[in-house]
Amino acid sequence: MNIDAVLAAARRLDGHVRHTPLLSSPFLDEIAGRHVLVKPECLQHTGSFKFRGAWSALSALDDATRARGVLAYSSGNHAQGVALAARRMGVPAVIIMPSDAPALKVANTRAFGAEVVLYDRDSESREEIGAALADARGLTLIKPYDHPEVIAGQASVGLEIAADLPHATGDVLVCCGGGGLTSGVALALDSRAPGLRARPVEPEGFDDVARSLRSGTIQRNDRQSGSICDAVMTPAPGDLTFPILHRLCGPGLTVSDDEALRAMAVAFKRLKIVLEPGGAIALAAALFRSDQVDGNTVVCVASGGNVDPETFATALERFGDA
Amino acid sequence: MNIDAVLAAARRLDGHVRHTPLLSSPFLDEIAGRHVLVKPECLQHTGSFKFRGAWSALSALDDATRARGVLAYSSGNHAQGVALAARRMGVPAVIIMPSDAPALKVANTRAFGAEVVLYDRDSESREEIGAALADARGLTLIKPYDHPEVIAGQASVGLEIAADLPHATGDVLVCCGGGGLTSGVALALDSRAPGLRARPVEPEGFDDVARSLRSGTIQRNDRQSGSICDAVMTPAPGDLTFPILHRLCGPGLTVSDDEALRAMAVAFKRLKIVLEPGGAIALAAALFRSDQVDGNTVVCVASGGNVDPETFATALERFGDA
Repeated sequence: MNIDAVLAAARRLDGHVRHTPLLSSPFLDEIAGRHVLVKPECLQHTGSFKFRGAWSALSALDDATRARGVLAYSSGNHAQGVALAARRMGVPAVIIMPSDAPALKVANTRAFGAEVVLYDRDSESREEIGAALADARGLTLIKPYDHPEVIAGQASVGLEIAADLPHATGDVLVCCGGGGLTSGVALALDSRAPGLRARPVEPEGFDDVARSLRSGTIQRNDRQSGSICDAVMTPAPGDLTFPILHRLCGPGLTVSDDEALRAMAVAFKRLKIVLEPGGAIALAAALFRSDQVDGNTVVCVASGGNVDPETFATALERFGDA
Repeated sequence: MNIDAVLAAARRLDGHVRHTPLLSSPFLDEIAGRHVLVKPECLQHTGSFKFRGAWSALSALDDATRARGVLAYSSGNHAQGVALAARRMGVPAVIIMPSDAPALKVANTRAFGAEVVLYDRDSESREEIGAALADARGLTLIKPYDHPEVIAGQASVGLEIAADLPHATGDVLVCCGGGGLTSGVALALDSRAPGLRARPVEPEGFDDVARSLRSGTIQRNDRQSGSICDAVMTPAPGDLTFPILHRLCGPGLTVSDDEALRAMAVAFKRLKIVLEPGGAIALAAALFRSDQVDGNTVVCVASGGNVDPETFATALERFGDA
């Protein structure tokens, strides 16, 4: 993986993805003690950055392969990204989703025209189910993060930050599951805005990337469920993403589920954007783990907003005074 | 009022206001039966378009006048706009607000450094209170809509739409109180995107502008309270705004409070933005009064997002399945 693949993906994405803005509020700056810039990928098509990687991967396939259709396994946001990209390209999509995924994500994926296959997160392997379906139907598996063209697509988030802040210095906090977004952003910043450093943010108890960065080898999470941050609950960093993360990223940060909910309430109140728990953890780290962040300015990638109304209402009820 | 004043204001605003994007979702298109584009002014500084007019008006004052300070009366969004603009320019601001304004708006206005004076909406006149304070302290009154430089500032919303959609045809629906935003948008579109036509949207029972347009003379509302759309409850169109509205706008539309809440829930779910009731009525008209709208594409200005958590939670609870 190098910057050439990132730039090639950016050319394929041009005109198909939204260049999201950088939002700010004096109230956020006051909480964090530094200038906070938030990149709201919740405003991206399908409500998360995942559309970027999906479009990149599908657009990189040769025509005949793409026409047979694609398959993805995902807690939801990758699913929606692949489903919409496939629909816009006129090809079939099958999505394998955990049975405990938010109802909104399942419904949206179906509404985008994809066929949804549900599996049990604790007792079944989505990888095995996916491989069997791909074999049977001639579908191409689009992995959610450990896929070069997906990483190159997510990197466009970093290119946009670099284009908007070419001379900035400081930390860029990124909500991190398997590391596709974080590694892509790191690649883009390293090449185009070397004063900015990508740092992964994870939920407490699911800090596989932070531990992997500290130890220098891939570490796994003990659990695969139990956080409200469903979008970033992954077993371990990927074989492709980890070497990039290890080479380019600063230390990982972790936040609690309550801090994620509080950041959602702050984003509601001060930025007027809707974040899901897993999409709010980078902002949570900027606001509530400020002592672990470097620089006069911090950039947070707010990676998604696909949250059930009930969970959002809970965040407002508990932390609406935040 | 002509396009020269609009362009002069745009030059003063350059670099100080956000050029908000145009958002869309296939789900919105399906509800409306046409392509829907939403301009999220909730993402503007202070959470509403009002910052544009405030910056325009304050930046147009001569230095000595501005230095003595400014005064505004407002249900809240104009207050926040004037307060932040004044703070950024380093001058004092006094804001007169109704005692039933949302707590968030009162608190934010104070947090921006302004002095807040509360009045009773049913028994007192904000105009009289404002005039007395202006006299006593040498403050300059910044009216919320019937002010040439405020209208010229709000017009920048229309210039941005015209820049993004120079060749489009159809209706541009605008949340309308006293008509500052609507008249400004109409002026800009008339000059820069004549295929687009501004149309005011009001809450049922507060359709003074729609009735004024039909009759050709300024009509007043019977009530001054009783809608959840506090941001757009004004007694009548202004002496400056009405002639512009009458000359350039298409017929007005009205929506119910429930339709405003439902549009808030749709915006939450499909666009991941936070709208207040009065800021959601243009979207509500596009979605639920589609038979009264012309063209293959409709643009809605979503004018603000300063809503209390309780009201937002109510919208999600009642219409989260929308």
